Amino acid sequence: MEITKPTLVLDKDIASRNIESMARKAKTLGLSFRPHFKTHQSAEIGEWFRKAGVDKITVSSLTMANYFADFDWNDITIAFPVNILEIPEMNELAGRINLNLLIENIEGLEALQKKISWHVGLFIKIDTGYNRTGIEANQTHLIDELLNVIQKSPLLQFRGFLAHTGHTYHANSTNDIYSRHFDAILKMKTLKQRYISDWPDLIISLGDTPSCSICDNFDGVDEIRPGNFVFYDLTQNKLGACKLTDIAVRMVCPVVAVHPSRNEVVIYGGAIHFAKDSIINIDGKHLFGRIVVQDNNQKILLDEKNYLHALSQEHGILKITPRDLHFFKPGTLVEIIPVHSCLTANLMKEYLTTEGEIIKMMPFF
Amino acid sequence: MEITKPTLVLDKDIASRNIESMARKAKTLGLSFRPHFKTHQSAEIGEWFRKAGVDKITVSSLTMANYFADFDWNDITIAFPVNILEIPEMNELAGRINLNLLIENIEGLEALQKKISWHVGLFIKIDTGYNRTGIEANQTHLIDELLNVIQKSPLLQFRGFLAHTGHTYHANSTNDIYSRHFDAILKMKTLKQRYISDWPDLIISLGDTPSCSICDNFDGVDEIRPGNFVFYDLTQNKLGACKLTDIAVRMVCPVVAVHPSRNEVVIYGGAIHFAKDSIINIDGKHLFGRIVVQDNNQKILLDEKNYLHALSQEHGILKITPRDLHFFKPGTLVEIIPVHSCLTANLMKEYLTTEGEIIKMMPFF
Repeated sequence: MEITKPTLVLDKDIASRNIESMARKAKTLGLSFRPHFKTHQSAEIGEWFRKAGVDKITVSSLTMANYFADFDWNDITIAFPVNILEIPEMNELAGRINLNLLIENIEGLEALQKKISWHVGLFIKIDTGYNRTGIEANQTHLIDELLNVIQKSPLLQFRGFLAHTGHTYHANSTNDIYSRHFDAILKMKTLKQRYISDWPDLIISLGDTPSCSICDNFDGVDEIRPGNFVFYDLTQNKLGACKLTDIAVRMVCPVVAVHPSRNEVVIYGGAIHFAKDSIINIDGKHLFGRIVVQDNNQKILLDEKNYLHALSQEHGILKITPRDLHFFKPGTLVEIIPVHSCLTANLMKEYLTTEGEIIKMMPFF
Repeated sequence: MEITKPTLVLDKDIASRNIESMARKAKTLGLSFRPHFKTHQSAEIGEWFRKAGVDKITVSSLTMANYFADFDWNDITIAFPVNILEIPEMNELAGRINLNLLIENIEGLEALQKKISWHVGLFIKIDTGYNRTGIEANQTHLIDELLNVIQKSPLLQFRGFLAHTGHTYHANSTNDIYSRHFDAILKMKTLKQRYISDWPDLIISLGDTPSCSICDNFDGVDEIRPGNFVFYDLTQNKLGACKLTDIAVRMVCPVVAVHPSRNEVVIYGGAIHFAKDSIINIDGKHLFGRIVVQDNNQKILLDEKNYLHALSQEHGILKITPRDLHFFKPGTLVEIIPVHSCLTANLMKEYLTTEGEIIKMMPFF
């Protein structure tokens, strides 16, 4: 396929290697592997996981759960605090598959108790320090209150405690990731010890991509749920979670203008293709992507003085050093390594593999 | 329709009023009105413009031009520097409608000259200070060079000079918008004076939403192309381009968790619904949306101490003052006024009107 506009190109070999590597790590550490599918959102890529032995998954919305259930995934955790307004639809899905939901407050639990007519699994969401959702691990009176309600509800099956240590994304160093992850493990282990005698089957579910990629100590953890690792991106690279060569997606964009007077190149490729997450570059400015150019049939990764520096709706502006400006001509293509592959993929809605195959994602969210 | 997940609600009355108001302003000032359709991206909303007398439009991509051409728009300007790789497809479209393209370099023009077999209109893109794309107004040697090529190409019809004074979005005050707009007008008028004798039909096309909303001096300008004004948003409100009551879209989101200990509320509604543009709030923090709650069947806009303060893929975090926390309960809905309606609409792909009708947008970009 000839590329004429912004196209998200996926290297299947790299993605498959990332999947196998994480599946192997989980197996070696004796962890159950329930990868998050919100990054790729694609039934076809789901099959690559199936080949690596995956038979249960995590998603971030009911819509996504319904989509993957249609492709024979029958053990799904929706890792988002239960949305009371969607319980009737969740109940329908629970009639078809093994569905796990997250609760973090009594309102959500009582609504489930009233409206669910099939068995559902429940995780209590624990806040290990990310401070987005969940109950702090020391709020055991609230946990007890929830467990009391669950105990009296024959359709609600307590699965265990689940956390997302998302503050590893704000870590300042690899050591900082270790320490945040270790702190999360300690909190979860304390809960396990407290509740395991009453609930002998409870499990501890953890697992953001940075800690799953970097750390080896998962003592007390039973299940991991990383998602981004299938593609990785510049954010993960900056955190030390992957090498640049582990990043499986690139946006291929046409060059439409070259402005040597201000060392800039304009590409067709903007906020509606990349989304707007950025990392801070060596010059202190926002970086929205790194640049790979073609030279005599060889691909060259330009250094960080060359980068995607601004995005409007359809335009991207590259900052380019005078030395490297000769790589850019209107009518040619450049490759951009994205900062946040989840949001980029979500916008693009399809992939073109390096082998030339189009892979579709779920149509709506 | 019962809302159970993030839904972009559109007030048709407000949008229609915005359209009529801008159409009237253009008429009063003797300006041709070629609104930008990249904000709404919807054939049905296009018809609201048609009712206000609009018969020519602006779009930001060939894909969008093809979409609207299928809905009987036959005079379209693609306001993006010509992407050489798409010229064959542009040529096909030029066989069906009156198509205007933008050039800003000799490479793009020469590629058009070689590959176009139908009449196309050409605007030379001028950079009035936004420094994104275009030729600076004083680079007349380059403009002369382009015009020489155009003059020798019977299929390429010079339409005039086009600019997007996008740096009005970075203005610090309403006066600053006046001054940036006035500066742009001066530059464009100078070009008009220089070239009008050789090209008596040339027009000057300008018109970002801030200056089209705020300014009344369009001396020398022939055509305006604002787009965002159909919905407006918090960015435009902060610039002084609209009142809050002129904003036609709101995201309705379920509340999923309330955390009084840190004055936060979690909504279902994240970066994949809103996109990630922000403005700076009175507390110096990023604000991603303002909040409207329901109280005894009355809608109340909360003050700026309450705001959408963080977004991850599906989660939004509201900062809420202790005084207003009682408005929020899991299982209820809140309305969020978005910061950047163009990017929000682009993600949502459909609207629910306040009258209960679903309006679709173009399916892909």
